[in-house]
Amino acid sequence: MDMKVKNWSGTIPRPVGLIIRQKDPNNLEMPFDQLDDFITPTELFYIRSHFPTPELDPLSYRLSTGGAVRRELSMSYADIRAMPSRSCIATLECAGNGRVFLAPPVPGAQWELGAVGNAEWTGVPLSFLLEHAGLADDVVEIVLEGADRGAPKEEPKPPGQISYARSIRRARAMEHDVLIAYQMNGQDLPPDHGYPLRAIVPGHYGMASVKWLTNIVAATQPFQGYWQTSDYGYWDDSDGTPVRRPLAEMHLKSQIALPRVYERLQPNRPYTIFGAAWAGDTDVTEIWISLDGGASWVKGDFIDPINRHAWRRWKYDWTTPPRPGRYTLLARATAADGCVQPDGHNPNFGSYVIDHPLPIEVFVTSLEACPGS
Amino acid sequence: MDMKVKNWSGTIPRPVGLIIRQKDPNNLEMPFDQLDDFITPTELFYIRSHFPTPELDPLSYRLSTGGAVRRELSMSYADIRAMPSRSCIATLECAGNGRVFLAPPVPGAQWELGAVGNAEWTGVPLSFLLEHAGLADDVVEIVLEGADRGAPKEEPKPPGQISYARSIRRARAMEHDVLIAYQMNGQDLPPDHGYPLRAIVPGHYGMASVKWLTNIVAATQPFQGYWQTSDYGYWDDSDGTPVRRPLAEMHLKSQIALPRVYERLQPNRPYTIFGAAWAGDTDVTEIWISLDGGASWVKGDFIDPINRHAWRRWKYDWTTPPRPGRYTLLARATAADGCVQPDGHNPNFGSYVIDHPLPIEVFVTSLEACPGS
Repeated sequence: MDMKVKNWSGTIPRPVGLIIRQKDPNNLEMPFDQLDDFITPTELFYIRSHFPTPELDPLSYRLSTGGAVRRELSMSYADIRAMPSRSCIATLECAGNGRVFLAPPVPGAQWELGAVGNAEWTGVPLSFLLEHAGLADDVVEIVLEGADRGAPKEEPKPPGQISYARSIRRARAMEHDVLIAYQMNGQDLPPDHGYPLRAIVPGHYGMASVKWLTNIVAATQPFQGYWQTSDYGYWDDSDGTPVRRPLAEMHLKSQIALPRVYERLQPNRPYTIFGAAWAGDTDVTEIWISLDGGASWVKGDFIDPINRHAWRRWKYDWTTPPRPGRYTLLARATAADGCVQPDGHNPNFGSYVIDHPLPIEVFVTSLEACPGS
Repeated sequence: MDMKVKNWSGTIPRPVGLIIRQKDPNNLEMPFDQLDDFITPTELFYIRSHFPTPELDPLSYRLSTGGAVRRELSMSYADIRAMPSRSCIATLECAGNGRVFLAPPVPGAQWELGAVGNAEWTGVPLSFLLEHAGLADDVVEIVLEGADRGAPKEEPKPPGQISYARSIRRARAMEHDVLIAYQMNGQDLPPDHGYPLRAIVPGHYGMASVKWLTNIVAATQPFQGYWQTSDYGYWDDSDGTPVRRPLAEMHLKSQIALPRVYERLQPNRPYTIFGAAWAGDTDVTEIWISLDGGASWVKGDFIDPINRHAWRRWKYDWTTPPRPGRYTLLARATAADGCVQPDGHNPNFGSYVIDHPLPIEVFVTSLEACPGS
């Protein structure tokens, strides 16, 4: 008896869904082989939450703007929705995406490739509110605080419960593409993605795009909160003595979506290697692919044009090797500023910024020896 | 520009591949929504390794049988292949499968649903070798040792490097379905699955089916090795004072393959919920599904007949709710011995035996509000 309930490879669309990396709170990644369109469908967009999703009532919701401002603001969701809006397409990547590739293993959600996505975000420029509030001259940073609260687990950690908060530099906060967003891909934000309002800081790792945004604070000193110093920080030793700095801009990175890890390929056949590449505040200009674990590199082609802060999908039309065996594929991007992805992970970044080419191991199997198919 | 490189939902077969849970050594799981046939294709079968895959040459390979036996044996791979063989279909589940559902999180690979598979195994009954060697009367256990070696990381751990080893009780070892297997689904074992030889202990958690099998030792005392006591053990408090015992038989369990976590469903439509259920040394006789997080249960239908030690796929023809929202689906099996899956995880099993119904959260979304599709 071998009755099939469904055959997803036929005319029925394949199911979508996410991979659980942590539960309670949900930390879920996109199966990255599902990469297809330029825009990541909302239901495939990774979810990275520090605490349970707050349930916020849009009717009673208030967004406060305070600190070193001339005029404190308290706005309702309706107030924000009534303001002039803009949309931007931005790739968000969790700073820990790719962590499962680090050896030896490090603490934290063991993300593989799917803690990254590219969406269209719609909302009010943060600068609009800040101009309305009137920043004091000595403001250096804008702190963004969410309604999500809890007790951090990783040391060094503060006592008790705190709200998730991150800051961005004043100049960055005033750029017109930093949004207080209420829509994602043309629909209201889902609860897991920050409903009713979230920050979007294009070009920065996802931790800057604070979800469930409730407080905006103009600060005259660099913010020293938990997720700005202890977590989401790195050691900058460019001046000799290592100093702690907050993560900010995404590093140049590329990923292979197809083939996926341990995929079986037939020998001597055309196969289109497919992936995406992105950067922080620069543009991805070249993509190189290695079919032999890094011994040699060939140039791939971009599918998408340059669009600052959005990823570029790319492809390489490969002919699979005639010889069955195990092959390691890599992708490496080059940026407009001359950067290339590094050969390995920089330990100064701890469990973050996994921006080196990630090995995708595949098998070329002769048809006869392809078991179970 | 929205050029598509490939459209996997069309006539091209979807790619297969595995989800990385740990790297170096590779611990990879099947995307469980890929469940389809009764037999898990070898390329989708989960890989759980404690140390790097040993590279063994079948020409120089020897399998030793020793300990309390009348005649020590040393056999080549060719010797084993020349013996009478048998095949059996057995479900293997990693004892830590489902670990990502435990809250708070526990150490170890954060398996979701895919560290389980059902394959056909072919080899020589272990009893054939043991009878040939002649067990001493006072033998109580058979220790199976693999060629994989390394230093365990979890406390309490022994000093230095050790070889992976597990024991099974004498009576179980003498049953005809315990194999020294050289084939999986009709093909030679792949390296990651134990090439050239592995044990298969149907009904036991996967840890008993020692890969890269090189030593068989007849023991007159219960084996007290690391993976028999410190790891893959549990606290048995049935007599009041907790005592440490090795894990052995798989517990009754069921899993939902479709829908998958965070899948979006259309309201008021037919949808076939699909999954599998298995047990150790009993048979799965009933499958119940909850569509409301456990408040009520409906009976599902089995697709596969009872086949001891193999899973049974099951289905339930559902009509999705008319009301959009978040729904939690559960499956719970009943066995011939009257057992039902427990409501929650028994902490005596530590980070193992996650045999309670695992919540699959899905969204029913109205067509208009289905973002990004």
